[in-house]
Amino acid sequence: MSTARYIRIHENDNVVTVANDGGLPAGTLLDNGITLKEAVPQGHKIALVDLSPGEEVRRYNVVIGHANTFIAQGAWVNEHRLDMPAAPELHALPVATNLTHLEPLQGYTFEGFRNPDGSVGTRNLLAISTSVQCVSGVVAHAVKRIREELLPKYPNVDDVISLEHVYGCGVAIQAPDAVIPIRTLRNIARNPNFGGRTLLVSLGCEKLQADVFFPDRFIPIKNGGFQRQDDHIALVTLQDDTNIGFDGMIRAIMEAAEEQLLVLNRRVRTTCPLSDLIVGVQCGGSDAFSGVTANPVVGFASDLLVRAGARVMFSEVTEVRDGIAQLTARAADAEVARQLIEQMDWYDRYLGRGSADRSANTSPGNKRGGLSNIVEKAMGSIVKSGSSPIRGVVPPGERCTTTGLNFAATPASDFVCGTLQLAAGMTLHVFTTGRGTPYGLKEVPVVKVATRSDLARRWHDLMDLNAGRVVDGEASIEELGWELFHYMIDVASGRKQTCAEKLKLHNSLALFNPAPIT
Amino acid sequence: MSTARYIRIHENDNVVTVANDGGLPAGTLLDNGITLKEAVPQGHKIALVDLSPGEEVRRYNVVIGHANTFIAQGAWVNEHRLDMPAAPELHALPVATNLTHLEPLQGYTFEGFRNPDGSVGTRNLLAISTSVQCVSGVVAHAVKRIREELLPKYPNVDDVISLEHVYGCGVAIQAPDAVIPIRTLRNIARNPNFGGRTLLVSLGCEKLQADVFFPDRFIPIKNGGFQRQDDHIALVTLQDDTNIGFDGMIRAIMEAAEEQLLVLNRRVRTTCPLSDLIVGVQCGGSDAFSGVTANPVVGFASDLLVRAGARVMFSEVTEVRDGIAQLTARAADAEVARQLIEQMDWYDRYLGRGSADRSANTSPGNKRGGLSNIVEKAMGSIVKSGSSPIRGVVPPGERCTTTGLNFAATPASDFVCGTLQLAAGMTLHVFTTGRGTPYGLKEVPVVKVATRSDLARRWHDLMDLNAGRVVDGEASIEELGWELFHYMIDVASGRKQTCAEKLKLHNSLALFNPAPIT
Repeated sequence: MSTARYIRIHENDNVVTVANDGGLPAGTLLDNGITLKEAVPQGHKIALVDLSPGEEVRRYNVVIGHANTFIAQGAWVNEHRLDMPAAPELHALPVATNLTHLEPLQGYTFEGFRNPDGSVGTRNLLAISTSVQCVSGVVAHAVKRIREELLPKYPNVDDVISLEHVYGCGVAIQAPDAVIPIRTLRNIARNPNFGGRTLLVSLGCEKLQADVFFPDRFIPIKNGGFQRQDDHIALVTLQDDTNIGFDGMIRAIMEAAEEQLLVLNRRVRTTCPLSDLIVGVQCGGSDAFSGVTANPVVGFASDLLVRAGARVMFSEVTEVRDGIAQLTARAADAEVARQLIEQMDWYDRYLGRGSADRSANTSPGNKRGGLSNIVEKAMGSIVKSGSSPIRGVVPPGERCTTTGLNFAATPASDFVCGTLQLAAGMTLHVFTTGRGTPYGLKEVPVVKVATRSDLARRWHDLMDLNAGRVVDGEASIEELGWELFHYMIDVASGRKQTCAEKLKLHNSLALFNPAPIT
Repeated sequence: MSTARYIRIHENDNVVTVANDGGLPAGTLLDNGITLKEAVPQGHKIALVDLSPGEEVRRYNVVIGHANTFIAQGAWVNEHRLDMPAAPELHALPVATNLTHLEPLQGYTFEGFRNPDGSVGTRNLLAISTSVQCVSGVVAHAVKRIREELLPKYPNVDDVISLEHVYGCGVAIQAPDAVIPIRTLRNIARNPNFGGRTLLVSLGCEKLQADVFFPDRFIPIKNGGFQRQDDHIALVTLQDDTNIGFDGMIRAIMEAAEEQLLVLNRRVRTTCPLSDLIVGVQCGGSDAFSGVTANPVVGFASDLLVRAGARVMFSEVTEVRDGIAQLTARAADAEVARQLIEQMDWYDRYLGRGSADRSANTSPGNKRGGLSNIVEKAMGSIVKSGSSPIRGVVPPGERCTTTGLNFAATPASDFVCGTLQLAAGMTLHVFTTGRGTPYGLKEVPVVKVATRSDLARRWHDLMDLNAGRVVDGEASIEELGWELFHYMIDVASGRKQTCAEKLKLHNSLALFNPAPIT
C-alpha cells in the first residue's frame, strides 16, 4: 500500500479528496491525524471534522452543500449525504469587481491557412454542407468517391467531409427558437478550416431552402432554383431535372467538389500571430480531479492564449450556472455581465419549460468520480477559463468575434457544445476528461487532457496530455500549462496530429434545436 | 403539345389538378370547355368556376381553404390565393361510425427469419446499440473491422450496423418527456431484424446507463458495472479498466460481436404467414399527385396486408391532424378513438409550447408540387392507410402489438418518423414521394413509390415502383396495389433488394426528444 495522498483545495475547506488510484481503505491514517471511518474511492471526499445535519460542506472555499445526516470526521462525504444549495438568483450580482490584468505575451506564432476574409484555419478541408438529412446517404457515397478519386490530385487539401445533421425538414422552421439550429449550420459552413468555400447539397423540397440557409448568398429565381451571389459558394440540388439517377447525383456533387478543391489546393500555411487562433475549451466525463489537475492546466494555457491575443471560449451553461457570481465579477463591463445573465435566464426558462430540474447535470459517472452535485462540478468547470476578464458572450450558434476570453453559451452536452463552438469559429478544441472519452471531430483538431495518470496510462493512444502528473507530484500546473500551450501551437500549425486525428475518431454534429419537430 | 390532362377527385370539387408534365400554358382549352387564364404548373389546381373572396375551395370533397381574392374560372388556385381553415376541434368527433369490413385474404406467405420470441425479421443483421454519441467514433471503426474481418465467416448474416444517435448524455434524462427517446432506443434494439440479440456499447459515465437503457436486462453490481440477466445481451463499456487503449476497445467490441454473429449465423428463412409482417408506411416530398397515385396504391396494398393479418402502421401526426374526424370515424372502438385524440392533443400542446403554427407543415417543395396547405396535404396523406378500421394507436417510441391497421403517432419528419416506426417493430418500410427522396435505412428495406412518371424516369435506379402510371392511364390503382403487394413479399423474403439497398443508401437515426438538452 502506497502512502495515503489527498488534496485540500482551500484552507477553509472542511473536506479533502482522495488522490490514490483505487481509493483508500477503512482505517487508513492520514498525515493530518485523521483515520478513515470507511473506504473512500479515488476522487471522493473525506470529512475533516464532524458535520452535523444542516452544516455547510465547503470545497474550493465554496458551499457545495449541507450535510443531511451526521457525518463523522474521517467518513465519506458523498452525494447521498449532501443536500444541494438552491441555484443563485440572477439579480444583485457583482459586476466587473474581479478584473485581473494579464501582461501581454509576445513572440508566439503559428503556421495557419489565411483566408480571403482574414480568418485563419488550422486545417485545410473541403466541407460539404447539407440542408437536410434526406441527402446524407448520397453525400456519404460522394465523399467516399471524392476522397478516393479526386483528393490524391489535390495534395494540399487534408480531407473532404460531410456536415451531416438531422435538421432541415419536418421542423418548425418559423418557430422563434429555430434561429438557433439554422444559424449554427450557416456558421459552421463558415468555419475558417473550410477556406471560405462552401458546397451545399440540397434535396430541393426541404424547409431549409438554400436562401434560408444562406440568405445573403442565394436569391430565388423564377423557375424554382437559386442564383448564387458569389462564386465562393456552390449548390447541388438532387431534385434538379439535370440529375439523372444516382450516378447523375454523384457526378454533380463531384464536379462541384472539384471546383472547390482546385481553389482549396492553393492554400498554404503562413506564419500568423496567435491572435488569429480561436480556441474552444470544454470538459466531459468529469471527476473530482477535473477541477484540480486538467482544468487548472487548461486555465493556465487559456490565460497564455488570451495574453497572446487569441480568442478563447469556454461554455456549458448548466455547468457554470452555479458560479454565475464569479462570472459576472469577471465580466469586463456591465454590458458583458448583462449578456451573461440574459443567457443564463434564457436557459433557466428553457429547462423549466421541459421540467428539467437541477439534478439533470451531473451524470452517473461524475458522481462515481466523486462529484457530489452541480455546485461542486461548476467550481471545477469554471477553472478552465483561467483568470482573465470575460470580454464577450456568444449566444448559441453565433460567431465569436471578440478578442480575449469569451463565454459561448452552449448546453453542457459534449457533442452539442462542440458543435456550437465549431459554429462560433473554433479552429482548435481542448477537451479535459476524468472518466475518459474518445471524443473527436472531423472539422477541427481535438486535444484531450486526462485528469488522472491512471486514465492516461490505460488510454495511452487516446489522451494527448496527462494532467494527472500534478497530483503525482511530477509537474506543476504552470509547467503543464506551458506544455499544453506549446502542443496547441504545434497542432494548430499542422506539425503534430492529435490522438483523435491519428485514429480518425469522429463524432457527429449534434445541433441544438430548442424548437419543435413537426 | 400533348393533350391537356387533369384530375378531378370528387364530383363536388370545384378545382381540378393539372396532370401534364411541365404543366399547361395560358390559353389551353380543356375538354370540359374551360380555357386556362394563365399557365398552371403540373400538380397545381385550376378553378372550375369563378370563386369570390371567402368562397369555399373543395378538393377530395373537403374544404381545403377559402378564396382570399377573386379567382376566375380557369385561373390558378395556389397557396397565395387561399386562406387555410382552422384545425378541427378535438371534441364531439364521430367515433367508429365508418367501419369497413374487409374480407380476410388467405394463401400468402413470405420467407422470414423467425426469432425465439416469435417475431419475424426480413433481414439478418448484427446491430450494435450505443448508449451515447461519445462512443460513435470507436464503434464506426469496430463496424468496419467486423465487416471486413468477421462477416465473411458468417455468410448468413447480411450486415453489421451501428445504431448511432446524438442522445445519451447532456440531456434532461429525468424530465417527463425523456421517456420517449429512451424507449425508442430500447425498442429499436428489439427490432425483429436483429434476431433478439443485443450488443450495447457504452462509454461508462453517461446518463443513459445500461440499466436505464435496458431496465430488465442489466442489474448494477457493486464495483460499478452491470450484470446481464440473459445471455442474449452483451455489454462493452469503453471506460472499463480491462480496455487498454483504442486497440483494446476495438478488440472488446469485436469479441462481443463474434459471440452474437455465431448465433445470428444460425438464423434461416422459413415460410411465415403475412401476419408476421410489420409494415410502416409514410410519405415525404409530397406533391399533389401523392394523394391521387402513390398514396392510393399504398392504401390498396395496406388493405391487402391487413386482410392477410399483418400489422400496418401509418403515422405523421401533423399530416393527419386536419383529418382527425375521418380517423376517429374509422377507429375500431371508443378506446382507440380516445387514444387517437390523446395523441393529437399531446402534439397540439407540444407544438404550442414551441410556438409552432399550422403553417409549419407544408414544405416549400410541397407548395411547388401543388399542395396549397396542410388540409390539402392531410387528405392525400391519409389515403395511404387504406380503408380498414384503425385497431391500434402506438405512442412515439412504443412497440406496435396490435394486428391490423395502426396509427403510430410520430412527427411527420421523414427521418424521425422512420426512426419511430423502427422502434415500433417495422420490418418493411414503404415510402411514397412526389418531389423525390433518396431515403434509405440500414435497419430495414425501404420500398420507394414515385407519384409521377417523370420522377420515376429520371430517378430510374432510386424508385422501386412508378405509381405515375395511374395518371398516364397505363395501370389502375388496384393493379399497382397488387404489384406493390407482391413486390413487398419478394423484398420481405429476401428474393429482391430495394433500390436503396442495392445502392447502400442509409439515413441516420433521428430520435424524437421533446425534453431539454442540458
